[in-house]
Amino acid sequence: MTTDPLVVFTPSGKRGHFPVGTPILTAARQLGVDLDSVCGGRGICSKCQITPSYGEFPKHGVTVSEGALSEWNAVEQRYDDKRGLKPGRRLGCQASVQGDVVIDVPPESQVHRQVVRKAAAARAITMDPATRLYFVVVEEPDMHSPTGDLERLERALREQWDIEAVTADLTLMSKLQPVLRKGKWEVTVALHKGHKDSVARIVEIWPGLHEGGLYGLAIDLGSTTIAAHLTDLETGEVKASSGLMNPQIRFGEDLMSRVSYSMMNPGGDQEMTKAVREAINDLVTSIAEEAGIDASLIVETVFVCNPVMHHLLLGLDPVELGQAPFALATSESMSLPARDMDLTTMNPRAQVYILPCIAGHVGADCAAVALSEEPGKSQDLVLIVDVGTNAEILLGNTSRVLACSSPTGPAFEGAQISSGQRAAPGAIERIEIDPVTKEPRFRVIGSDKWSDEDGFDQEIATTGITGICGSGIIEAVAEMRIAGLLDEGGLIGSAEQTGTARCVPEGRTHAYLIHDASAEGGPRITVTQGDIRAIQLAKSALYAGARLLMDEMNVEKVDRVVLAGAFGAHISTKHAMVLGMIPDAPLEKVSSAGNAAGTGARIALCNIGSRAEIERVVREITKIETAIEPKFQDHFVAANAIPHKTDPFPELALVVTLPNPSFNTGGETEAGGGRRRRRRG
Amino acid sequence: MTTDPLVVFTPSGKRGHFPVGTPILTAARQLGVDLDSVCGGRGICSKCQITPSYGEFPKHGVTVSEGALSEWNAVEQRYDDKRGLKPGRRLGCQASVQGDVVIDVPPESQVHRQVVRKAAAARAITMDPATRLYFVVVEEPDMHSPTGDLERLERALREQWDIEAVTADLTLMSKLQPVLRKGKWEVTVALHKGHKDSVARIVEIWPGLHEGGLYGLAIDLGSTTIAAHLTDLETGEVKASSGLMNPQIRFGEDLMSRVSYSMMNPGGDQEMTKAVREAINDLVTSIAEEAGIDASLIVETVFVCNPVMHHLLLGLDPVELGQAPFALATSESMSLPARDMDLTTMNPRAQVYILPCIAGHVGADCAAVALSEEPGKSQDLVLIVDVGTNAEILLGNTSRVLACSSPTGPAFEGAQISSGQRAAPGAIERIEIDPVTKEPRFRVIGSDKWSDEDGFDQEIATTGITGICGSGIIEAVAEMRIAGLLDEGGLIGSAEQTGTARCVPEGRTHAYLIHDASAEGGPRITVTQGDIRAIQLAKSALYAGARLLMDEMNVEKVDRVVLAGAFGAHISTKHAMVLGMIPDAPLEKVSSAGNAAGTGARIALCNIGSRAEIERVVREITKIETAIEPKFQDHFVAANAIPHKTDPFPELALVVTLPNPSFNTGGETEAGGGRRRRRRG
Repeated sequence: MTTDPLVVFTPSGKRGHFPVGTPILTAARQLGVDLDSVCGGRGICSKCQITPSYGEFPKHGVTVSEGALSEWNAVEQRYDDKRGLKPGRRLGCQASVQGDVVIDVPPESQVHRQVVRKAAAARAITMDPATRLYFVVVEEPDMHSPTGDLERLERALREQWDIEAVTADLTLMSKLQPVLRKGKWEVTVALHKGHKDSVARIVEIWPGLHEGGLYGLAIDLGSTTIAAHLTDLETGEVKASSGLMNPQIRFGEDLMSRVSYSMMNPGGDQEMTKAVREAINDLVTSIAEEAGIDASLIVETVFVCNPVMHHLLLGLDPVELGQAPFALATSESMSLPARDMDLTTMNPRAQVYILPCIAGHVGADCAAVALSEEPGKSQDLVLIVDVGTNAEILLGNTSRVLACSSPTGPAFEGAQISSGQRAAPGAIERIEIDPVTKEPRFRVIGSDKWSDEDGFDQEIATTGITGICGSGIIEAVAEMRIAGLLDEGGLIGSAEQTGTARCVPEGRTHAYLIHDASAEGGPRITVTQGDIRAIQLAKSALYAGARLLMDEMNVEKVDRVVLAGAFGAHISTKHAMVLGMIPDAPLEKVSSAGNAAGTGARIALCNIGSRAEIERVVREITKIETAIEPKFQDHFVAANAIPHKTDPFPELALVVTLPNPSFNTGGETEAGGGRRRRRRG
Repeated sequence: MTTDPLVVFTPSGKRGHFPVGTPILTAARQLGVDLDSVCGGRGICSKCQITPSYGEFPKHGVTVSEGALSEWNAVEQRYDDKRGLKPGRRLGCQASVQGDVVIDVPPESQVHRQVVRKAAAARAITMDPATRLYFVVVEEPDMHSPTGDLERLERALREQWDIEAVTADLTLMSKLQPVLRKGKWEVTVALHKGHKDSVARIVEIWPGLHEGGLYGLAIDLGSTTIAAHLTDLETGEVKASSGLMNPQIRFGEDLMSRVSYSMMNPGGDQEMTKAVREAINDLVTSIAEEAGIDASLIVETVFVCNPVMHHLLLGLDPVELGQAPFALATSESMSLPARDMDLTTMNPRAQVYILPCIAGHVGADCAAVALSEEPGKSQDLVLIVDVGTNAEILLGNTSRVLACSSPTGPAFEGAQISSGQRAAPGAIERIEIDPVTKEPRFRVIGSDKWSDEDGFDQEIATTGITGICGSGIIEAVAEMRIAGLLDEGGLIGSAEQTGTARCVPEGRTHAYLIHDASAEGGPRITVTQGDIRAIQLAKSALYAGARLLMDEMNVEKVDRVVLAGAFGAHISTKHAMVLGMIPDAPLEKVSSAGNAAGTGARIALCNIGSRAEIERVVREITKIETAIEPKFQDHFVAANAIPHKTDPFPELALVVTLPNPSFNTGGETEAGGGRRRRRRG
């Protein structure tokens, strides 16, 4: 029978008996308790802080006396003097077992700590990054038994950290000898081990204990914008978020025009590759500056993007993606050195992970949404729509997940709209039209006031009212439909038909005037018939894609809808449904997931297991190619009406009653009946 | 009981029964018979040629009738029309079993064919390179089941060649889609799989069947010269050999002066790295041109070199190699992409293998000598001396192998010798001195005639007599010793002491005049007292190194001596022993292995198993560090005498009787008694 003291760890509840004198860190390791340590128990990294509890613990059947741990020692005193230890804390590598004890491991001392995301519904990310820090003491060289410095470092990692094998490239090798000597044979190495790697790679080496942190980037590379989150790889904390325009816009607004540019200009793909890589290099520099860290501490980057951006980022000509059968060069995930992509401003040995693509039109961004939103784990049938220049659509539950993409075009982002603009100060983002007076009131980015509220003019004085952004145009069109200014077919009525002088003639059609600052030399903001047609094309494509997946799933309705994408976060769900962007559903079952693709990228950055998971999930997703489904065209045509020609919207009808005028006097045919150009971007 | 026909393969003797209609290639594969095929049995690569034998074969217990194989078919006819098949040959993938048959697999149809080396004693190289060609038919993309082109290529390799997994870098990925389409979904890939790799790497891809061959380079990167052998990776044939001067010579003749250059000039190591890499790039271009092949067909390179060159090639500062404890950055073998070393003129995805280093002073070149000469497999005790600017010395037999290096300096290569020059036309390479008249006769590189033979003057008219090369100076000094012009201590006698006016005063010492063309404005070629001292330092270092290994092995003599190195091939063994360069041994037991390091590089290039072998061997070699062995200095001083102060040379005495004059009149102290500068290079 053992008489060794009992050690109980919380919150894990793991317990075991250990001889007197066993350091708590050692006990934790033997029990598999998640207790961090970078220095390997040498009392210098302070990662293994624990809190002993004293007194009676009937739950654990333990009484902890004052002398349960060894006395506060000189190493702890030195650390406390220098950095300060929180009251009650001990260093797990210094405090040793003297009697029965209960030890709490605070979250910040756990390697696999959970990072709680802002959205309450979203799952937490468990930290388990591919790149980690290890402090080692390396044996000095000995002429009598000559081995290389790398081999002795390798041995140290094996003996002190159970790491079997490491590899180092020449750029690391060239630092190895001076750093080992500068650190007096004590160094910290950052090791990267991907989920498919059998050997860890030395990404960086510092003399002594490295305390400068370790960072990763999660990048959502969109056709229009590039958004990056700089994440602390030890804590999971987002240190800075930053974005910039995709400079490829100068080669084409949408993806298909970029593919065309590549087809028509020899070397055009390389130009675009160079442009986007340079932009990412700049983004890395600026985000590091913003966070106040050295950019060389960025050792990992995860990318999510659509297939065309995927190819252009990787330096692969996207030409095959522009024509059937839309063959990807590779659909699997990619793990490669950042420098192979000329990403030179982060650590020179930084590693890149790119999520797998689902199909030729459904990219790694959609995979990232699937990783973040987990439709395959949903009990109810969920439709996830990532609204961007191209829409990615997922439909599924625990039985099955389907995916497709649909070429909505850039109208939802305010492009190809007469008064459209990107979401920036001065843009109209919300709008209401009085159903009686037909007068509009609106809000502008940069102010919380409505245009008919006191002080609005002062608040927007510096920016002015410059145009309508994506969410603004959706509300405007929906409000026009609700107010009876627009008929089901999408025609704007005349002043006579609608009873408001705001419906002004424009050629053979009409436009609705929202704001006129032309007297003061400002813009005249209208919604034109052309704008309506552009929105109709976009929303029909989106709806048709969703409908196609529902056909495949053999359902007529979905249980809930998730709007993803940065833009999705700003859409009014009611207006989106009035427009018929999404299938009918109870409004309270329509939610926004924010930038789910970006969140997926962060998950893949922070948790290496999620990479294997999403690769497995993507293999199991059923891919639907909208371009070759004859029914897509039928769905598209039927979806042209606002909200829809044939599909009933009973849930919508519970909250909104739509008037039913008809402004078609034979002068204009309905849009969408003809052949449409396939458009991506 | 089977009634299927019996197929017997020669030379392997493998046999088995196969159903009528089984292609010979299939039968060979099932039996594990070494029969090549790149196209996978599609009748287009012709690698699987076999020769059926007909008649009675009592040895095999078989009678082969005329109809034992299927009839000559259209595929064979087409191939024969186009390329020609040797009489009696069939394509193994087309000819099928119809009755009992004996099939000979000619050497050129064997994958693991043996390449017989020129030196009769040397072992043959069995072809088993890391990079091989595979022809595959790839499934076309299908929108309904979207996968990437890479994944379909991967599947084809798995299904058609049992290759589990492949990887491709971005430069290859960017070719993938156009090449697959150009080849109409039939492509040849070159796959590289190193002996430590779990995944094969696609090095190159060609549309259709690639018939342009595949090449590798074995490079012996010396301090002074860089020698390369361009080798056909399918046949093992050396297609071209080429060499050039190491441009690092401008930073220092010997290795230690290059290390000093690096120490004293910030960035000096990078300058030297750049210089040698550029030279290798040029060498690649020129050797490919010489062989008439496209340099991009060079997909592998093996390097052997000493530790300082190793570090400078890899871009690692060699400073640690210049001071105790002579720590290598890494001692293990290296496998890395050529482009990581800026080697850009070969295939952009070419792979480099560098043999392991043995110790801080004993490099991959010595490992290559061990691979080529296999001292660990020798029954008798063999001393292997690789004579270069730095000498690598191996001593061993099946029980144990020891290694060291010794800093001989460049005297043996004609450098630091008053009339010394590199081995080039015009250089005196052989010399005899008449022991009676003390008159010399000599031979010059570029002519087979001795200087006292008719027609000598005409033959050397274009080159003249320009100096003495390494082998010439060794013979000159040894001949002077035999002729009594030089005493045991290394002093040259005066004209009075020696009785010849060719011993001319030079300062307070004397020189021996070999050739005087000064009257015609030509050189005056002498061996000076300084030259003797330089040779004494060099040979003492060499001998002391060998002696140290013999001490460690606890032997007083060795069974045989192998002189390696390009220079070793030209040394007269008798003269080397008169000089006391090597320990006493029967002259017939002293042989030359030619450029053994270069041969080792070729073996590692052609046979991947040899890489694992040499890595194992190197780990087992006992390393002796001459710099810290106190006895080295004693051996060095004792070896200063010619041939030796104390060691008897009984075997030498059987063939040469050395006179024993003494010219020391107190005017000069013997060299070697003082402290010596450690010199490498």
